[in-house]
Amino acid sequence: MKILVLNAGSSSLKYQLFDMANQTVIAKGNCEKIGLKGSFMKYKAHGKEFIITQEINNHSDAIELVLKTLQDNEIGVIMDIAEIGAIGHRVVHGGEIYKDSIKIDDEVMQNLEKLVPLAPLHQPANIKGIKACQELTDVPNVAVFDTAFHANMPECAFMYGLPYSAYTDWQIRKYGFHGTSHKYVSKRVADIMKKPLEELKVITIHLGNGSSMSAVKNGHSIDTTMGMTPLDGLVMGTRSGNIDPSIIEYINKKTGWSIEEITNYLNKKSGMLGLNGKTSDMRENNELIEQGDKHAKLFLDILAYQIKKFIGAYAAAMGGVDAIVFTGGIGENQEDIREMCTDGLEFLGIKIDKDKNWKLPRDTEQEISLPDSKVKVFRIPTNEELAIAKDTLRLAK
Amino acid sequence: MKILVLNAGSSSLKYQLFDMANQTVIAKGNCEKIGLKGSFMKYKAHGKEFIITQEINNHSDAIELVLKTLQDNEIGVIMDIAEIGAIGHRVVHGGEIYKDSIKIDDEVMQNLEKLVPLAPLHQPANIKGIKACQELTDVPNVAVFDTAFHANMPECAFMYGLPYSAYTDWQIRKYGFHGTSHKYVSKRVADIMKKPLEELKVITIHLGNGSSMSAVKNGHSIDTTMGMTPLDGLVMGTRSGNIDPSIIEYINKKTGWSIEEITNYLNKKSGMLGLNGKTSDMRENNELIEQGDKHAKLFLDILAYQIKKFIGAYAAAMGGVDAIVFTGGIGENQEDIREMCTDGLEFLGIKIDKDKNWKLPRDTEQEISLPDSKVKVFRIPTNEELAIAKDTLRLAK
Repeated sequence: MKILVLNAGSSSLKYQLFDMANQTVIAKGNCEKIGLKGSFMKYKAHGKEFIITQEINNHSDAIELVLKTLQDNEIGVIMDIAEIGAIGHRVVHGGEIYKDSIKIDDEVMQNLEKLVPLAPLHQPANIKGIKACQELTDVPNVAVFDTAFHANMPECAFMYGLPYSAYTDWQIRKYGFHGTSHKYVSKRVADIMKKPLEELKVITIHLGNGSSMSAVKNGHSIDTTMGMTPLDGLVMGTRSGNIDPSIIEYINKKTGWSIEEITNYLNKKSGMLGLNGKTSDMRENNELIEQGDKHAKLFLDILAYQIKKFIGAYAAAMGGVDAIVFTGGIGENQEDIREMCTDGLEFLGIKIDKDKNWKLPRDTEQEISLPDSKVKVFRIPTNEELAIAKDTLRLAK
Repeated sequence: MKILVLNAGSSSLKYQLFDMANQTVIAKGNCEKIGLKGSFMKYKAHGKEFIITQEINNHSDAIELVLKTLQDNEIGVIMDIAEIGAIGHRVVHGGEIYKDSIKIDDEVMQNLEKLVPLAPLHQPANIKGIKACQELTDVPNVAVFDTAFHANMPECAFMYGLPYSAYTDWQIRKYGFHGTSHKYVSKRVADIMKKPLEELKVITIHLGNGSSMSAVKNGHSIDTTMGMTPLDGLVMGTRSGNIDPSIIEYINKKTGWSIEEITNYLNKKSGMLGLNGKTSDMRENNELIEQGDKHAKLFLDILAYQIKKFIGAYAAAMGGVDAIVFTGGIGENQEDIREMCTDGLEFLGIKIDKDKNWKLPRDTEQEISLPDSKVKVFRIPTNEELAIAKDTLRLAK
């Protein structure tokens, strides 16, 4: 069976078509600048990449274009839409309603709408993507939530120190994100270690443009660094991560900026970009460090230190740790971060093979701890799309 | 020599007069409702407590009343102000200027004024107290800062993931507070363990109406939970502690409250009070728990869980931990918190003597770890006033 996986943003739509017989991607791409001038679609299949330039006014246009291209006589990969058994949608927010992926029906659509206030930037785009698929095809749709894996956190982990009414009246709590990735890599760790996930304490470290960590105990996320929104936790590409909440009023007094402007400053102008003042791209930050840029180095130091503290915190939360996994673009490819944040943690039984850590072949699953390291440490490429495809296959029947 | 220790709030002035020959308090009290209707002074000496009701219009009035009462023929304890060798002032903020206590001169006064924006509620009262002493006496004054002990934190610990200019232009960084207490109890631990503080890794846990923890490595605070302001970190009596910074905009959208109103909500209406909905007094929260109040219990669970995570985080930050100290009103007297937050940390070498933990005589220094616990755990009553008096004696010469 073939499964189409969609990840709809406000002006973009990423897609991958999987052949589930061998779990391979047979076509993938991205519609960009949807609803904007200069919209186009990238399409990759048969080992070639194509750019299709055409007006894409909305998500419905985008999905129509994707489906048409997938069936194209020359560059397509399927003969008929009916070959697609189901469509899996990455949906950012499942609130407290969805603790697992779910096949989409009218009730689900109503719930997704209700959750828009919790993710006002992303949820509407996800909903648009689903609606377009419902309009254009008869293929069953499945929602796979970024939050679902974290939905079983204990109350002491997900509640903030706010009036209880902030939770009951306004749904303010820690939801966590990147759940599909944390779930995928923690499962991979169990498979590689040949141990049941239900008996393992795993710390998953997803470092990319957005970054988060999760304490996965017996297969459940019992804590995670992102909070009510993806702004919280670790310092990221353009996001501040966690700060003293008083800073918002202080900046307002200094600048006169509105709350929206300050939140935008924390989301878009902070993190790596804010610290080095030039870029939110880790490779460019690395180049700056090589040129002797102290602020670029500071970003790395802060990130590594924060990760190290959360490794300790999550080990404490779980009463120990059996394995640590690095994943995501930065987690998979930035050797120094992996070394820095585990350095000095020998007292926890963590010993990295420093030579090996610097020589990992790309895109491979690798153990990077020494044989006598009590805690096993891995670099595992994440594959959220495959995880979505698998969930979709499981639920679409 | 006698040392007067003052702690000036916006409408209060706490004072203690120490005889440094034997480090005892010979008189102490508090001026309350300064500048308000119904102002009065509590005064305790010769084993008796007095309430002196009189108009106290400002801090100068308050200090005049303190000095007059200390010299009173009937209830006083000194014959002449000249017996007071120096006055030590608790000052909330030393910014990045003061890494130790300092004898106050004109330059210090100018610097204290400059730091007002970093502590707009507390610093002005501290300054008023000092000015009144300068006007009314010739006794030397010493400033002892809440922040000073944390002033040597490494950059990766004190910097937020904000644009670097937020630090250089607006002085936004983690400063930390309760420094006098963290310093005092970490030194006491070293004394009790008969080891040099310079060779110890200590986690200090100060739990009171305000709460904070500190990672004290080789005698220096290398990290602490309070941030730019005392709102950050652990959940407290009325303060939320750390939250996802996006929550402020979200609450604003829900309520229309201004930033000031929301920050006030986080400072005054959250924490224990917000969660149980009734009280910010730990003893009353305990009574609620006994009556079966689940939200009162939730506060305890959240606090204990947060402390546990910071124990792990600070052990990781220091590359291990030799000792843990509980102090402050709650840290010294709330047995269940001490048990809950160390439970499950055997993998770190932490083993509490649970029986002993529940039977500690009040106001005594006690080890509460088992003999085979690799990490020593203590309950040590803090004494910030004595620490201020000692620093004052050291610097007033």
